[in-house]
Amino acid sequence: MKGTMTAIVKENQGQGALLREVDIPTISEDEVLVKVDYASICGTDVHIYQWNEWAQGRIRTPHTLGHEFSGHIVETGSAAKGFHEGDFVSSETHIYCGHCYQCNTGHSEVCRTMKILGVDRPGAFAEYVAVPERVLWKNDERIPPAWASIQEPMGNALDTVTAEPVAGKTVLVTGAGPIGLLAVAISKAFGAAQLFVTDLSDYRLDLARNIGASIVLNPGRDDVDRVIREATDGNGVDVVLEMSGSERALHQGLALLTPAGRISLLGLPNGPVSIDLNNEVIFKEIRMYGITGRKIFSTWQTVSRLLSSGTIDPTMVITHNLKFEDWEIGMHAMMEGMCGKVVLQIAGRQ
Amino acid sequence: MKGTMTAIVKENQGQGALLREVDIPTISEDEVLVKVDYASICGTDVHIYQWNEWAQGRIRTPHTLGHEFSGHIVETGSAAKGFHEGDFVSSETHIYCGHCYQCNTGHSEVCRTMKILGVDRPGAFAEYVAVPERVLWKNDERIPPAWASIQEPMGNALDTVTAEPVAGKTVLVTGAGPIGLLAVAISKAFGAAQLFVTDLSDYRLDLARNIGASIVLNPGRDDVDRVIREATDGNGVDVVLEMSGSERALHQGLALLTPAGRISLLGLPNGPVSIDLNNEVIFKEIRMYGITGRKIFSTWQTVSRLLSSGTIDPTMVITHNLKFEDWEIGMHAMMEGMCGKVVLQIAGRQ
Amino acid sequence: MKGTMTAIVKENQGQGALLREVDIPTISEDEVLVKVDYASICGTDVHIYQWNEWAQGRIRTPHTLGHEFSGHIVETGSAAKGFHEGDFVSSETHIYCGHCYQCNTGHSEVCRTMKILGVDRPGAFAEYVAVPERVLWKNDERIPPAWASIQEPMGNALDTVTAEPVAGKTVLVTGAGPIGLLAVAISKAFGAAQLFVTDLSDYRLDLARNIGASIVLNPGRDDVDRVIREATDGNGVDVVLEMSGSERALHQGLALLTPAGRISLLGLPNGPVSIDLNNEVIFKEIRMYGITGRKIFSTWQTVSRLLSSGTIDPTMVITHNLKFEDWEIGMHAMMEGMCGKVVLQIAGRQ
Amino acid sequence: MKGTMTAIVKENQGQGALLREVDIPTISEDEVLVKVDYASICGTDVHIYQWNEWAQGRIRTPHTLGHEFSGHIVETGSAAKGFHEGDFVSSETHIYCGHCYQCNTGHSEVCRTMKILGVDRPGAFAEYVAVPERVLWKNDERIPPAWASIQEPMGNALDTVTAEPVAGKTVLVTGAGPIGLLAVAISKAFGAAQLFVTDLSDYRLDLARNIGASIVLNPGRDDVDRVIREATDGNGVDVVLEMSGSERALHQGLALLTPAGRISLLGLPNGPVSIDLNNEVIFKEIRMYGITGRKIFSTWQTVSRLLSSGTIDPTMVITHNLKFEDWEIGMHAMMEGMCGKVVLQIAGRQ
Repeated sequence: MKGTMTAIVKENQGQGALLREVDIPTISEDEVLVKVDYASICGTDVHIYQWNEWAQGRIRTPHTLGHEFSGHIVETGSAAKGFHEGDFVSSETHIYCGHCYQCNTGHSEVCRTMKILGVDRPGAFAEYVAVPERVLWKNDERIPPAWASIQEPMGNALDTVTAEPVAGKTVLVTGAGPIGLLAVAISKAFGAAQLFVTDLSDYRLDLARNIGASIVLNPGRDDVDRVIREATDGNGVDVVLEMSGSERALHQGLALLTPAGRISLLGLPNGPVSIDLNNEVIFKEIRMYGITGRKIFSTWQTVSRLLSSGTIDPTMVITHNLKFEDWEIGMHAMMEGMCGKVVLQIAGRQ
Repeated sequence: MKGTMTAIVKENQGQGALLREVDIPTISEDEVLVKVDYASICGTDVHIYQWNEWAQGRIRTPHTLGHEFSGHIVETGSAAKGFHEGDFVSSETHIYCGHCYQCNTGHSEVCRTMKILGVDRPGAFAEYVAVPERVLWKNDERIPPAWASIQEPMGNALDTVTAEPVAGKTVLVTGAGPIGLLAVAISKAFGAAQLFVTDLSDYRLDLARNIGASIVLNPGRDDVDRVIREATDGNGVDVVLEMSGSERALHQGLALLTPAGRISLLGLPNGPVSIDLNNEVIFKEIRMYGITGRKIFSTWQTVSRLLSSGTIDPTMVITHNLKFEDWEIGMHAMMEGMCGKVVLQIAGRQ
Repeated sequence: MKGTMTAIVKENQGQGALLREVDIPTISEDEVLVKVDYASICGTDVHIYQWNEWAQGRIRTPHTLGHEFSGHIVETGSAAKGFHEGDFVSSETHIYCGHCYQCNTGHSEVCRTMKILGVDRPGAFAEYVAVPERVLWKNDERIPPAWASIQEPMGNALDTVTAEPVAGKTVLVTGAGPIGLLAVAISKAFGAAQLFVTDLSDYRLDLARNIGASIVLNPGRDDVDRVIREATDGNGVDVVLEMSGSERALHQGLALLTPAGRISLLGLPNGPVSIDLNNEVIFKEIRMYGITGRKIFSTWQTVSRLLSSGTIDPTMVITHNLKFEDWEIGMHAMMEGMCGKVVLQIAGRQ
Repeated sequence: MKGTMTAIVKENQGQGALLREVDIPTISEDEVLVKVDYASICGTDVHIYQWNEWAQGRIRTPHTLGHEFSGHIVETGSAAKGFHEGDFVSSETHIYCGHCYQCNTGHSEVCRTMKILGVDRPGAFAEYVAVPERVLWKNDERIPPAWASIQEPMGNALDTVTAEPVAGKTVLVTGAGPIGLLAVAISKAFGAAQLFVTDLSDYRLDLARNIGASIVLNPGRDDVDRVIREATDGNGVDVVLEMSGSERALHQGLALLTPAGRISLLGLPNGPVSIDLNNEVIFKEIRMYGITGRKIFSTWQTVSRLLSSGTIDPTMVITHNLKFEDWEIGMHAMMEGMCGKVVLQIAGRQ
């Protein structure tokens, strides 16, 4: 498809990005072109916008941001036979190779030569995005397009929660950012018997409480350790979901984790952390899971069903539903932490 | 403790039992004596009452029925040091040996020389029951005594549901008897995305719907296969929980089970069943779990927490809360299938 | 590639097949053409040769048999970009669709619209075979071509053995046919502490003993139950691998399975079997796994490594290494049960 | 039983211990008295001997060392009904309470009020040792007493290896001390396809090679990373077993661990370590298991069977079989790292 389109583009070094006209992407034979309905903002997009150290080393300008989206196919490559024009789709962000050791052993989510949509190739904060067929996901038509655009981060939350079952367990979520909030909603829906949430933002703690947290605590004000121990007969929690990247939260979580418990790590610390493996992990017989990406496509299948069946209603997690041209409001809300998920309405805008 | 007490006793061969005075049990050094608050009726009690073939071969009269109960300790043996007079307790029914291969490998629930409370020794449909300390469970004080008395069957339901996670899965429960209804409540609480229930009793299907089933179906009237296939995009269900013992339900469940799905078997068929292993199990790569008993005590710990935290509210499952002397009303409700769980108020009666 | 080639072809109804000249297959854009080095005979090939009921309903003549093979690529379709001419390859037999519920949830081995190589399309008992790229497996160059040709059935054995760990367990393999023998070799290599094998053929029991069985038993002559109980302190076995399809073996296996044990079912019974679920499965808390196909490609990865590292040496399992033109000797050995795996040397023959 | 016995006793602060006469322990009603046949030296015994910081804080002198042993019962308490005089036994070291949250949920190995034999009460480097019945293990009579005395540390090695299956995997063991060597033997027996071992002691690397390591590497001399990458097609290893407590080994292990791999931690670092969670754990989707203690008694059951069946032959791991009075030779060998397991022959000595 020829022509131009509006996209959020990082053109120069330094903070910022611009809404501008660029060429509609061309597709190769194994790709499809998708007209984007909704897109949602990820922390990665914020890092590119802010031009942090990681972005400086990884991104080649000019670059179109965005990778969480839903839309409809408008063009298919000759070898992309599993999808058709008009299909309602989203896309896995991790474009795996299909031939490395990880891909051969059911772990394409950690493919060794992975390319990332919106990072290593043009993204979805645009009217059109080109996507390889093998990472395309056919959406359930019952899912509203705004919800469909957040399936990808919801998959991160799902994998964090379900590294082991939470049903009937006591759970501590450290960090109530957008993915943390999704983890709260999922833990609640999956039968967590007690659900504690910590965050330094009272705004986000309020969201967490509304979404289903039993007790929310602000470590800047509350005695987290005492409150959780009292609420758990002194046992601490069975499960910690570390979604903050805060070293302090990590240690608090490990201290509160009951012996033989498990912790999932999704939050990314700013550099190495010091861990007392003997007392925090080994003597307590802790199981620790690093979480990245989503299982392709079993995670997507579950997320899709949770949304289409109404098991999870993300309405309260999506705090901002913005017009495309108002995208920078969302970017600032993300930087200030005054939001859950921020979605951008791209198609149908005036 | 000396004296007599009222108990439901099977005195003679043939159907029936009587409320009569018997001696209060004496305890050995590793046992405790419990004053029973509440007891609930199990299908096993009904079989003893009816004096079916199994009961005739196993029960020695005179015999006191009952094994699901809650109560308070009134006396402890000299070696029963972990519990004290006044403790609010229930008891695991499977009195394991602690020394066989199964006990040594974490499977005391299938101990090879197991004795069963209320079957191989006097039961809990009585003002007092003697219980070995090693199967005693200290109840959470927040759990009402009527609820505490159904923890044992709720444990069966829990183990049936959680042989693998149900979170985000499509689940079919075949059989909405008391334990089936508890499995419905647990599956719902643990995040089953779609929850189908079949039973030949519309009374029980109504209970199942109220407890959280998405769709209830009466195989005597409804086209179960067609309805479930349509509701699951033709895939069938991920999980079957067979709680009926009906051969027809088993085959319907296996037919509706999606390839690579799992089935848990709790219902006991009346004799051998014919299974087409090739098409019902092998080519479909099905995982089949036989479920019996409860993990001692990890199942109890989870059940206790589900009740104390309010994650599961069994109010709608407990359809009959009867005075002790009205016990035979409950027995008949069980035989007619016109009930969920039936509990008997034993202490405090006039 | 144009021209003709020699192949084993089923031309007419009734028993038999013929070595004859047929056209070399043409490939579509997502396929490759492989020059076959070695192929091995599967029970499925025997069923087609014998023209049993299943074959009559499924196979369209003329049909080229065979699906277990190794070879080298001689031509690649334009879209088959992951492989190159000269690559040493084998192929998964289950040609999955990639888009059904099972494919989307990591279970392409039970794809709902699966096509089977050598059954639904021309097979590998031929000088050349066409294979879709997505089921192609790049062989480790260290693996001899004869060994490489049996990776597919070895994958069945691997999945049967490893449904749960066998390390340190007592294991009973019922049925010492080619895949049963591979299961014996794998169980031994994976640390089975005691390894019992039953078969009605003393020839195969001798093979099993040489491959590593602790005790081999012929149910036609030996008191299997007594011997195994005595050797296991009365406990029976932790694991049963049912590889025979015999109803008698299934019941013997279930009887000998210790409570809380597991059984994997790979052997296909001739029709429905009668199972006493209460006593054989439920009260014993048995886990039963239907096994079919291989995980794509995690099973292949493990099989490849077991062979390339020398962890498994299949020399004693491969009892017949025949010239292509002697294929019918192998077919008869299979029908008579006087063999382990039979491999055919196809390339390089005179 | 009255009288005195010879024991290895820590009498004073500072390094050292003495072989001296002390009273034979008296037993309470739930304990047994065991005449010790063999005992083996653990690193913990060395720490008490050396009087390191941990020992100074934990041990009350005078104190009898030792907790790994085998022997025969000579006296039983009145409530210890599961064992009899003459039984050949060993003992779990972790004396669990049986009533805490961990004990109630199948994790008595991390009991919250655990007492440790030979640390918190008199140990087994003595002619007699008193042990509570609930931690007593009846030995298989086929196991030689010297082997039986090392079942406890072999259980540590087993749990480290089997946190997930190693069958068909590539495995790196960092640290070839006594438990590391046992982990090598177990990994080999359980089907590790490639088995790399690193240690700074060539003496121990020689032992590791003889026990079954594929490749042994001395990080002080060899380019560990390069050699292992080359031997694994650049993938690194599926499994790391960290048995050294060395921070350098930990990082090397994490670097060599393939994405989606797992690491078990048994070695105890000297204080906190700095971990780059993002790159070492999270982005690689690593599963990390803290290992302590043994499952009571499922680990013991497996260890017992591995020894009684000959699946594991620890002959080469037991480098020193010393007379009781030569115990200090063993203590020094442990301190110098010039040994595998050191066992002491206690009964029958001259």
